[in-house]
Amino acid sequence: MRRYAGYIFDMDGVLYRGSEPVPGAAEAIERLKRKGRRIVFVSNNSTLSREDYAEKIQEMGLPIEERELIPATYATARYVAERYGGRRVYAVGALGLMKELLRAGIRLTQQPAKAEVLVTGSDPDISYQKLSNATAMLLRGCPWVSTNADKLYPSEKGILPGTGAVVGALQYITGREPVVIGKPSKPIMEQALEVLGVPKEECLMVGDIIESDVLAGRNVGVDTALVLTGVTRREDVEASQVKPDYVIESIAELEV
Amino acid sequence: MRRYAGYIFDMDGVLYRGSEPVPGAAEAIERLKRKGRRIVFVSNNSTLSREDYAEKIQEMGLPIEERELIPATYATARYVAERYGGRRVYAVGALGLMKELLRAGIRLTQQPAKAEVLVTGSDPDISYQKLSNATAMLLRGCPWVSTNADKLYPSEKGILPGTGAVVGALQYITGREPVVIGKPSKPIMEQALEVLGVPKEECLMVGDIIESDVLAGRNVGVDTALVLTGVTRREDVEASQVKPDYVIESIAELEV
Repeated sequence: MRRYAGYIFDMDGVLYRGSEPVPGAAEAIERLKRKGRRIVFVSNNSTLSREDYAEKIQEMGLPIEERELIPATYATARYVAERYGGRRVYAVGALGLMKELLRAGIRLTQQPAKAEVLVTGSDPDISYQKLSNATAMLLRGCPWVSTNADKLYPSEKGILPGTGAVVGALQYITGREPVVIGKPSKPIMEQALEVLGVPKEECLMVGDIIESDVLAGRNVGVDTALVLTGVTRREDVEASQVKPDYVIESIAELEV
Repeated sequence: MRRYAGYIFDMDGVLYRGSEPVPGAAEAIERLKRKGRRIVFVSNNSTLSREDYAEKIQEMGLPIEERELIPATYATARYVAERYGGRRVYAVGALGLMKELLRAGIRLTQQPAKAEVLVTGSDPDISYQKLSNATAMLLRGCPWVSTNADKLYPSEKGILPGTGAVVGALQYITGREPVVIGKPSKPIMEQALEVLGVPKEECLMVGDIIESDVLAGRNVGVDTALVLTGVTRREDVEASQVKPDYVIESIAELEV
């Protein structure tokens, strides 16, 4: 494996599983940092703010700071602030998304009739009223930004619906499609590359899901490494049309 | 226009709009009945039971009896009872759907882990928990029956999400597809033809929506008439690839 100047890490399945850190993950990150490599962490998580996420990560003993994290909540807020700063935003999503939108200075409203931009994320309190509000906005042509469009979300309570439940519902009934911020889309990766500040030829994307992480790296033209500590097994890689540049057992194997 | 022995009427937009009967609708139905024509009324409504619906119709002064009505709630319950009688059913939907399922003798359960068949309809109390329950059932391969898959529902409060919000969400995240009972699918039309008891060459389907009513008639091989008292204008018919056999201003014009 080549050495890279910058590393973009997916988190769940790479650094930890559930609330258990992957053995050797903390040491691998420290090693990279000591060598002066640039590092950033991306996640499609759409329910936790950056601060919430940093707390969760630090509780697991991982040497990662808040400013190194780009969860989809934060990436979405940045994207919306840049594109639609000053516009009134109606958001369907969890508290963590609202926190990031507010922190980015976005004018959130609970009156969909006055809102100009729709933002969606995974919403534990999704309701018919919220879907109706979003539908009315989409039918009148408002721009639509979604944290991600993940279909399923493997949790400790089993496989749960991802943000795709909201995206799928609205897409089906309105025929509209959102700008998707999270992996495998480009916006979150472009923000990560900007933070790294090194040429993309010098960057490696490390993740555990082919359709999310490897495709995300491919989409912005960086090399990719798949770790086997998450949801993908070696046979899945062999069966897949999309091949990562490297397959490694775990982040602990990463050469620096 | 030919005379037919049996007539299948769509309701909303044909007999009434909102809570206002279409002028001449009551008289047209009485005329058909006096002449001994067979009549049945179908609707994709997935929130009202047959009894609820009859009450609503009768309040508008329309001469229609409960046994002549086939709302999608009732048609779905009949379909599930015939195919899956005795199996435990988990339903995501409104009270009217639950009423029909119970009336058809179906074993409804609130424990998705024990359920064998999933039924979906429009649900004013849709929640993340209900979507999670349905997702788990679909991922383990349970059969899935939906009252309809209508995208939008024009109401007096504006255009609202139809049952398609639930169908679209689950389809997107699980990749499964439901058996759809309502128009333009066949099951509700086949039940209507069975009630009429006349050869389908002798039947006319009358509705106001091309993609729903005219296609439904076409799908079971009956002639179709489009009325202009609902959502479709004459220019829409001209622009459409699917053509009804007749276009008439209103049900009042129907020759008997």
